[in-house]
Amino acid sequence: MKNEITSNDFLLESALAKKLYNNYAKNLPIIDYHCHLSPKEIYDNKQFSSLSELWLKGDHYKWRLLRAAGVDEEYITGKKDDYEKFEKWSALVPYLIGSPIYHWTHLELDRFFGIKDFLTPSNSKEIYDKVSSMLEHRKTNDLISMSNVEIVCTTDDPIDSLQYHKLIAKQTKLKAAILPAFRPDKLINIEVDNFIPYIHKLSEVVEYDIDNLDKLGDAIEDRIKYFTNFGCKLSDHALDVMQYVAHTEEEVNKIFSLRLEGKVLDELSIAKYKSYLLTYLGKLYNKYNWTQQYHIGAYRNLSTNKFYKLGPDVGNDAISDSQVSIPLARLLDSLDKTNELPRTIIYTLNPRDFEVAISIMQCFQSGIPGKIQFGAPWWFLDSITGIEKQFEALGNVGLLARFIGMLTDSRSFLSYPRHDYFRRILCNYIAKQVNKGLFSPDINVLGKLVSDISYYNAKEYFGFVI
Amino acid sequence: MKNEITSNDFLLESALAKKLYNNYAKNLPIIDYHCHLSPKEIYDNKQFSSLSELWLKGDHYKWRLLRAAGVDEEYITGKKDDYEKFEKWSALVPYLIGSPIYHWTHLELDRFFGIKDFLTPSNSKEIYDKVSSMLEHRKTNDLISMSNVEIVCTTDDPIDSLQYHKLIAKQTKLKAAILPAFRPDKLINIEVDNFIPYIHKLSEVVEYDIDNLDKLGDAIEDRIKYFTNFGCKLSDHALDVMQYVAHTEEEVNKIFSLRLEGKVLDELSIAKYKSYLLTYLGKLYNKYNWTQQYHIGAYRNLSTNKFYKLGPDVGNDAISDSQVSIPLARLLDSLDKTNELPRTIIYTLNPRDFEVAISIMQCFQSGIPGKIQFGAPWWFLDSITGIEKQFEALGNVGLLARFIGMLTDSRSFLSYPRHDYFRRILCNYIAKQVNKGLFSPDINVLGKLVSDISYYNAKEYFGFVI
Amino acid sequence: MKNEITSNDFLLESALAKKLYNNYAKNLPIIDYHCHLSPKEIYDNKQFSSLSELWLKGDHYKWRLLRAAGVDEEYITGKKDDYEKFEKWSALVPYLIGSPIYHWTHLELDRFFGIKDFLTPSNSKEIYDKVSSMLEHRKTNDLISMSNVEIVCTTDDPIDSLQYHKLIAKQTKLKAAILPAFRPDKLINIEVDNFIPYIHKLSEVVEYDIDNLDKLGDAIEDRIKYFTNFGCKLSDHALDVMQYVAHTEEEVNKIFSLRLEGKVLDELSIAKYKSYLLTYLGKLYNKYNWTQQYHIGAYRNLSTNKFYKLGPDVGNDAISDSQVSIPLARLLDSLDKTNELPRTIIYTLNPRDFEVAISIMQCFQSGIPGKIQFGAPWWFLDSITGIEKQFEALGNVGLLARFIGMLTDSRSFLSYPRHDYFRRILCNYIAKQVNKGLFSPDINVLGKLVSDISYYNAKEYFGFVI
Repeated sequence: MKNEITSNDFLLESALAKKLYNNYAKNLPIIDYHCHLSPKEIYDNKQFSSLSELWLKGDHYKWRLLRAAGVDEEYITGKKDDYEKFEKWSALVPYLIGSPIYHWTHLELDRFFGIKDFLTPSNSKEIYDKVSSMLEHRKTNDLISMSNVEIVCTTDDPIDSLQYHKLIAKQTKLKAAILPAFRPDKLINIEVDNFIPYIHKLSEVVEYDIDNLDKLGDAIEDRIKYFTNFGCKLSDHALDVMQYVAHTEEEVNKIFSLRLEGKVLDELSIAKYKSYLLTYLGKLYNKYNWTQQYHIGAYRNLSTNKFYKLGPDVGNDAISDSQVSIPLARLLDSLDKTNELPRTIIYTLNPRDFEVAISIMQCFQSGIPGKIQFGAPWWFLDSITGIEKQFEALGNVGLLARFIGMLTDSRSFLSYPRHDYFRRILCNYIAKQVNKGLFSPDINVLGKLVSDISYYNAKEYFGFVI
Repeated sequence: MKNEITSNDFLLESALAKKLYNNYAKNLPIIDYHCHLSPKEIYDNKQFSSLSELWLKGDHYKWRLLRAAGVDEEYITGKKDDYEKFEKWSALVPYLIGSPIYHWTHLELDRFFGIKDFLTPSNSKEIYDKVSSMLEHRKTNDLISMSNVEIVCTTDDPIDSLQYHKLIAKQTKLKAAILPAFRPDKLINIEVDNFIPYIHKLSEVVEYDIDNLDKLGDAIEDRIKYFTNFGCKLSDHALDVMQYVAHTEEEVNKIFSLRLEGKVLDELSIAKYKSYLLTYLGKLYNKYNWTQQYHIGAYRNLSTNKFYKLGPDVGNDAISDSQVSIPLARLLDSLDKTNELPRTIIYTLNPRDFEVAISIMQCFQSGIPGKIQFGAPWWFLDSITGIEKQFEALGNVGLLARFIGMLTDSRSFLSYPRHDYFRRILCNYIAKQVNKGLFSPDINVLGKLVSDISYYNAKEYFGFVI
Repeated sequence: MKNEITSNDFLLESALAKKLYNNYAKNLPIIDYHCHLSPKEIYDNKQFSSLSELWLKGDHYKWRLLRAAGVDEEYITGKKDDYEKFEKWSALVPYLIGSPIYHWTHLELDRFFGIKDFLTPSNSKEIYDKVSSMLEHRKTNDLISMSNVEIVCTTDDPIDSLQYHKLIAKQTKLKAAILPAFRPDKLINIEVDNFIPYIHKLSEVVEYDIDNLDKLGDAIEDRIKYFTNFGCKLSDHALDVMQYVAHTEEEVNKIFSLRLEGKVLDELSIAKYKSYLLTYLGKLYNKYNWTQQYHIGAYRNLSTNKFYKLGPDVGNDAISDSQVSIPLARLLDSLDKTNELPRTIIYTLNPRDFEVAISIMQCFQSGIPGKIQFGAPWWFLDSITGIEKQFEALGNVGLLARFIGMLTDSRSFLSYPRHDYFRRILCNYIAKQVNKGLFSPDINVLGKLVSDISYYNAKEYFGFVI
């Protein structure tokens, strides 16, 4: 049965779409400026033991689907063996109509293993065995190299020694640059139990006591300098609840001290500390010419049961519907008013917030092309519908031409075809505008739009030195 | 003038869509697992006096449209005679572009009365007379039988004796099973004036005093057992304001006692009682292997004027925009954490909540295929746009293949064609996915998806014993 | 390169769409019932000095795009000369894919200056010079006359003497009627510094002291009478934050007195005063047979920096995500319950509020065709997507046939083609419904729908006396 997903025309509905894709998008390198790959696994050039390990272990997108299909947890995160788990997955795949995961599944089988068939229970064993036999030549570095990746930004804790980045940089096996990115959630979440031990660890790393806000600030800047030395150009923040409240440095110094003494803080104090720290960090990012990322609106660990049994990041998260506009605007303004707002990428997980976020972002544009970005659709929204909705909202309310495009945000080494998926949707969207008479057919302009959004905008925007 | 709405190809835009509809959807029976039909009218095999009685009396969808057109209330709920009212309606119908009610109108005229013309002022009298002459053969049982309905679940109060269900069960005229469903809103709305008299009535029904929370709990379980004996497998809750707050049983016992003493409760106490009761009920539904339905986000009786003159359910309701995520997640978790979450169907009336609700629901899937469902678009959303949006959201964020599909949620015996409307939109949606190269053309898979969502998923899910 | 935007078939995708547009929409006059044109510039029959003055000065839609492209503020609102600014704009235009401003740009060049080329850097000078040479014959009155405008409603302060309306009325140069509209935001915003001086000015205008709420009420009614004498039939309210709280007249009288004494009011008092005044005004609008407009959900002046440097209305505004349903319903109900709710047009700036607002509006329909309107998409939503979404939402949840259609809401004399843009999208939408078999092909009905929504509904609704 012909699998259109693996054809060169997938998602390209017109001659113009095909032309744009083939001439201006297909062969461009990938700048994957935000992902969750493991630097250790890259350095180790890890070989996976089976398609299950590569595909099912750790992929909570698939876990959710399996659970919704009624599959027993033993076959999902439990003790069943790899092939038993794979059988359950391959029994479900043929029914995933409307799901981006259906497309990813077949793109990944094709691009990395040359498999053009639909995965079904009847070819499940054959595909499993074929992939397994190829894994020796599909180590992490192979997968990255096959994908024409130029830059990978991982996600790293401020106290991380970046030892694997160091080691990777020393070797010359990989053409792609593997750069760290700074994820200081643990610095910001002052209310969690682990905060004080974390500050102690940070203290050990910087080799001085952190007993007041000034010292904390120094330590943060020291780590930002350290990361900068490794080519880091981005930070990332999980703003599950978007909030910004007025505060003074004096107040926050006191709040920080109370917390170090082990006191439990009230909601307002927590919000003040976080507001302060986000502003403080933003100013440093600006100073070091970094880009900050705000991931807004995840609602995590909903089922207490699943959280206790399996921990975080297990397919137990959802989309929040809290208010975004006022705290987001205030946070951006707190940086803008001293002219210290860095390049910023805003991602909202709730699709109903797209227009709100884009209209806010446009109030803070200044001086740098596309300085404030509305990021590519994220997590639950990384679908044809989501991507097209984002193009439409950006086109209507923002400036699509300056969009820095796709990132995988993935934990899997097989996710690079999502860039290809995105580029196809982009080319098809642009061609539709032209074919409907809504936009000039000037191929130079169209080609520039496609290649800019696929690659060059990101390249120019981040200013990676590699 | 050709009326495509009554053609066999209505809504089916491709050869594949037609094939799927004709071979896999068209002839399947209907499981109408939630509606507001009157068991008495079914038992009585009521004959309607005119098309106006059948169509306009009690149909607040139509009333709203008539009011928006500036028609005097005398012609809507007032004293004008049946034909005068019908004339106003038939004068408006030709202008209802974009409205599902336009489609329903013509589907109903066709399916039950063989009328294939568009209703217009010029054929209004003719159609009215033709229908009137047929009503003798279009009694309630005829309408159900003509619709290939297998199961009808009505909506019943916990204190209802279900006498008409009993009587219907005894006769053999109807092929369809008419089952009760449990709607305990009056048990939950502790703040309304009628609460104490209602508890007294419940007390009479169970034949013991209900003077504390334990007794209330016993009475509820007794009624659930009673309903179970009539084949009841579903409950339904109108959660106009979604809320869930922490509480102890002790607190709630005290709140209940205070209320029985006639005290006015504060907001928090009301919320605690409701949270407790929803959890208590959910556990019982789980024990008796029922499915619970949450209808979230109606905002009712907005115009005080209309409410005083006409009462509730008169076209005076709207869509709420209150927050859903946190209280919904907490309510589900309160049941999930003791492994007592029953099968649950979530309906949100605000289309902007689709992705939020689906992403939350997926956190609570476990063990049973499609255990937590996101229900078919409801009330204001029961339209082509609404249904397609739901397919898209379920496909992207949920698992469309396990969707239990359509229900009428209607007070009218003419509403069964909404199932046909839904199935056509479904077949067309699935065919579009294939025709765009987004999904395998395997007809066995496609046929299974169509027939499962049209019928078999619901059949398997509820486990009706008939 | 062929510019389809300037072709007669722009946006008309089918033969039926073309027929509807050409026969039922194209030649109808424009009733621009809400805009921000300057009556003085109309009376003066102002000649613009350049395309930059006409296009770029004051157009914050374009400013936002230029800022997002990284253009220096000197070229936007700064001291660069007119042509330098125009060059920056014409360098950006070719890349505005997906933006309605791209379409407006080319429609305006075509309709007023006969330019059918795409604006690009290479023809930028030529176009600039050509337009400049024509400006002598493109004075404000020429632009209005060329546009087949029948009625223009400006936006005027209650204390305005309407001297330019008086002077325009006396002359006979313009075929279009230029009527005032009443915008009492300064009466309502009791919390701003300028409130007391404003009340003093109002006092001078009405020639009596305003030292209590009764006197304020009298002054307001006097001004409404005054505006009525100039043919005013509309008011307009910017409800950036939608709120309505219960209050008594006595309370509000006290609040007003405290404010006149210079006291700073608490939030609740401010809300009570505003709620009272909106109700009071609504009753007067009803008495004088006016229509009130509620513009809901703008979030203004986000960047403190931009606000201090450039002031308000400079492209520094966004879409709010505050709750709308409850306060909107209560405000409407406060007028409806005494049968004093006037014709009302509700505009929501957040597209996610469309269904909420329409479903609320339908609860208050009564007696007058389309009495409560959901207004045409506004500001950030005035796009193909926004307009189609509005048609869909109105068709599904409201009564599209009674929609009073388009308005420019613009500060520019070149904005009339937005009516043409709207009518094309309308004809295309209606034709699509028919071509998909969703609606009767009766050309008389279709033609009536098109011409009603384009022109006749507004004409009947407002009852302008001209």
